[in-house]
Amino acid sequence: MKRGRTILSVLMAIATAGVMTACCNHDKSESCSADNGRPDGLATIMQRKSVRAFAPDTIPSEVMTNILKAAMAAPTGRNIQPWRFVVLTDTSRYDEVFVGNHNMAIYKGSAAVVVLCADTTFVAPPRNQPNAAPVSSPNALWRDDMGACTENLLLAVEYYGYGAVWTACYPFTDRMTSVHASLGLPATVVPYSVVAIGRPAGNDSPKDKWKPENVHYDRW
Amino acid sequence: MKRGRTILSVLMAIATAGVMTACCNHDKSESCSADNGRPDGLATIMQRKSVRAFAPDTIPSEVMTNILKAAMAAPTGRNIQPWRFVVLTDTSRYDEVFVGNHNMAIYKGSAAVVVLCADTTFVAPPRNQPNAAPVSSPNALWRDDMGACTENLLLAVEYYGYGAVWTACYPFTDRMTSVHASLGLPATVVPYSVVAIGRPAGNDSPKDKWKPENVHYDRW
Repeated sequence: MKRGRTILSVLMAIATAGVMTACCNHDKSESCSADNGRPDGLATIMQRKSVRAFAPDTIPSEVMTNILKAAMAAPTGRNIQPWRFVVLTDTSRYDEVFVGNHNMAIYKGSAAVVVLCADTTFVAPPRNQPNAAPVSSPNALWRDDMGACTENLLLAVEYYGYGAVWTACYPFTDRMTSVHASLGLPATVVPYSVVAIGRPAGNDSPKDKWKPENVHYDRW
Repeated sequence: MKRGRTILSVLMAIATAGVMTACCNHDKSESCSADNGRPDGLATIMQRKSVRAFAPDTIPSEVMTNILKAAMAAPTGRNIQPWRFVVLTDTSRYDEVFVGNHNMAIYKGSAAVVVLCADTTFVAPPRNQPNAAPVSSPNALWRDDMGACTENLLLAVEYYGYGAVWTACYPFTDRMTSVHASLGLPATVVPYSVVAIGRPAGNDSPKDKWKPENVHYDRW
């Protein structure tokens, strides 16, 4: 009987853990945790927020790698994958890289800064001539891919319990020039966005931006 | 004792359910389900794929609403929120709306098409003059916001077990003209992307786009 009680108490503990994770109400878009304590897909999207003040924690390299994998999983027109990444952690260089940038204090206070870059060209045979010699052409959709890529990166940061803020670099030449020169970017590559990442210092919360009046059915 | 056995079997069922959800290995970016059977945040990102062939299922309106909420949760420069949405389900209109579009068969085979539009202007007091009269100005970052917005929408579709494909509209005037006219879009609003959504007919799988050579540390 003692053994039966032990089994029962173990089962109750597991059952309690199971019940504790069954807390989701997705129809209301509420925050929801998976069994590993990480947010589920919808919660990750709805809980993402801009974080501009960070605790001193660093980002483990395996987390950074998974964040970059998530960024590269973005959709991309004609599978061109224009994205390139420069990861910065040496704040002593930021005065040079981001000279005059009004987000300097945010960058310096973060654990890592990822500069998301885009190759604005791609090399391939001309469309409808798959057997012709590859040529370099402008990519009409690189900026759209980069928006999706930056968002994937931000969502992966949120998923891992870190925080980030997307600051624009392109199309502002006053911000782009020093980044391009300091990081040694190739001529066809532009610095698109600068994302500062770290452990949130405060309790930032997401904005509620739901506006049903922005949705039209059948026509405007 | 019979009652004890009943409790025991109930507890075992709950415990089994609990154990079944504890299957994640996030360090390897593997697919992972939350306790509600939905993918967690990283799995949603990594499992998203372009789906172009659909089963005849429709999209429940509450799911569509949550998908649109996710789209509106995207980051947006200066909180301008340029996004507008036109949801289409009446395929008999598609010949007019998407005249000449090479994605016509995909649109007609889907359960719903969402046209993501952007107001390219915004009305606010001039920057640094918060008390001045509001004026209409061009929004330099609307395209970036729309890339993130479209990606959020696609991820929410994936989360709910549906599939979608992002087809570009902007900047291709041959695609934009009929959409703009047929849907009655205002002059400052452009049709940005057209996303076809439905229940996947096949077993589409995501591309592996991880390329470590696209990541640079400290400088290019």
